[in-house]
Amino acid sequence: MELIILGSSAAIPVRERNLASTALKYKNELLLFDCGEDLQRSLVEAGLKFNKPLKILISHFHGDHIIGLPGLLFRFGLNQRTAPVTIFGPVNLFLYLSVHRKVLGLNPHYPITVIEIDDKQKQLIIYESLDSDLPNKKLNMKENTIFDGEKYTLKYTLVDHSVLAFAYSFIEKKRNGKFNPEKVKELGIPESNLWKKLQEGESIEYNGKLIDPIKESIVGPKKQGRKVTYSGDTAPCETLIELGKNSDVLIHEATFSKELSDMAIEKKHSTATDAATDAKKMGAKQLVLTHISSRYKDESLLKLLEEAKEIFPNTLIAEDLMRIEIK
Amino acid sequence: MELIILGSSAAIPVRERNLASTALKYKNELLLFDCGEDLQRSLVEAGLKFNKPLKILISHFHGDHIIGLPGLLFRFGLNQRTAPVTIFGPVNLFLYLSVHRKVLGLNPHYPITVIEIDDKQKQLIIYESLDSDLPNKKLNMKENTIFDGEKYTLKYTLVDHSVLAFAYSFIEKKRNGKFNPEKVKELGIPESNLWKKLQEGESIEYNGKLIDPIKESIVGPKKQGRKVTYSGDTAPCETLIELGKNSDVLIHEATFSKELSDMAIEKKHSTATDAATDAKKMGAKQLVLTHISSRYKDESLLKLLEEAKEIFPNTLIAEDLMRIEIK
Repeated sequence: MELIILGSSAAIPVRERNLASTALKYKNELLLFDCGEDLQRSLVEAGLKFNKPLKILISHFHGDHIIGLPGLLFRFGLNQRTAPVTIFGPVNLFLYLSVHRKVLGLNPHYPITVIEIDDKQKQLIIYESLDSDLPNKKLNMKENTIFDGEKYTLKYTLVDHSVLAFAYSFIEKKRNGKFNPEKVKELGIPESNLWKKLQEGESIEYNGKLIDPIKESIVGPKKQGRKVTYSGDTAPCETLIELGKNSDVLIHEATFSKELSDMAIEKKHSTATDAATDAKKMGAKQLVLTHISSRYKDESLLKLLEEAKEIFPNTLIAEDLMRIEIK
Repeated sequence: MELIILGSSAAIPVRERNLASTALKYKNELLLFDCGEDLQRSLVEAGLKFNKPLKILISHFHGDHIIGLPGLLFRFGLNQRTAPVTIFGPVNLFLYLSVHRKVLGLNPHYPITVIEIDDKQKQLIIYESLDSDLPNKKLNMKENTIFDGEKYTLKYTLVDHSVLAFAYSFIEKKRNGKFNPEKVKELGIPESNLWKKLQEGESIEYNGKLIDPIKESIVGPKKQGRKVTYSGDTAPCETLIELGKNSDVLIHEATFSKELSDMAIEKKHSTATDAATDAKKMGAKQLVLTHISSRYKDESLLKLLEEAKEIFPNTLIAEDLMRIEIK
């Protein structure tokens, strides 16, 4: 499982930093948090393969977080994509995309699902293509869960920005312990689908004997799943801390340094101090500062990092194309 | 007067080439033909100053020609723009932009005018802001003229592409001849607004005597204005040749080489041969090939140039940030 920073600048792209986007590579899937302009170029530069199931999570509708989305969807078409794309975001996400269908002819031949998160009604509004202007269904949300799969869930929370904005958590379910095939061979069980069951921690019956893979040390005990939280744009807020509790990695915006905390408050952004305080409060293991104002470079950028590290030592500043492994 | 190539790639951006956009710097104004994604970065890299009157001409609604427009308009806002922007394009241009107002909050404080060219009704549909969904007025077009100013006119024509698409010409009006201030001084005329009139070729009365600035060799004879034609995306077509007659510079798409002419025909694009033939037919002085497929690099790119030069020797291949002076 790996995070790849595709863009880490706030508001405007600069030579070294593209606009906001972070990828999460998880098994054979890809997740994207936000889609800053020119994202398709960053994806290619990062050497990421597109044609695998993709979930896109849009934090809010400021241009620097979404303008890269239509170009990406067109690009997938040019590249003969076949794998499905699911896009989550605030209400009006479909309206934005459907105008690209009506005016620009965006008409994907690959499966595309648009899921609007209606925070007020606690509903998911689901469009299973761009073809119709009416949603296919609405589902009530439980505990802010927007996706609940076999391996992981996705949750969101409302945060505190100048427009309606969300933060997201990727929460892996418990993982199987380490598999020891030698042990299975010792028991004389031939390679078959029984192995797969054992590997997944399931007990099996073999030659009339019940075999519990954990008791027999065939697999180690289940491991805690991993958690990644992405703040989007926000001033410090309790809902984010609640969502991100015990994250392995917190990717948090840090548009300003503490010297500009008045501006951060006015524009409902965070300082490096705010981000580090949030990381500490939620008991995160690692903090990645992103959405950095173009005013910070070289020395002032190092100062931004130091400011956060004083509060939360395990902090990195995002650089475009940086990769962070999460074990 | 100077052309600046801001993007010269077809369909997808590559390391060396951004998506379609060409700027024309004319006196204190800027014109932009098409707005490929990430245009704001190219404008900065080209060192172009934004805050001057700007006309944007969108050739058609394929993503690689327009997706950079919203980001640019947001960027102008961040940069405290005050100078006016006028955007020309096919019908539905306003719908595309107004969704950016509704969903993304695009709400320029600088003057913005959107002018849809209704080719069927031969009308200009004019919106003087993004605030209302109704146009402010409709004007009948004369001879495909979409703008008629003091110094230049802009004309369009329908071309032959897979979607409704336009080509545009910038046509400078006759220019004043060279001014000779020594001659005016000899005649004893003090520096005043009389000088300005003479400079513009107007006769004046001074001390009861009629002074014709051309007869008196105060200014040289009026010079022919310059003409620049931008093809947009198109298969070869007579309307483009008619529009572009006697252009000083023809910027013509050349997506493919003649080896792929079947693909060019199928996709309604031009080969380098097509572009050169058009340049020859219209009696252009110079040809700039742009909208180059990402398959052409190094040797194959040189071959593309040679292919055009065999038919039209004064040909260049556009490179991003290339500048072409037009005297």
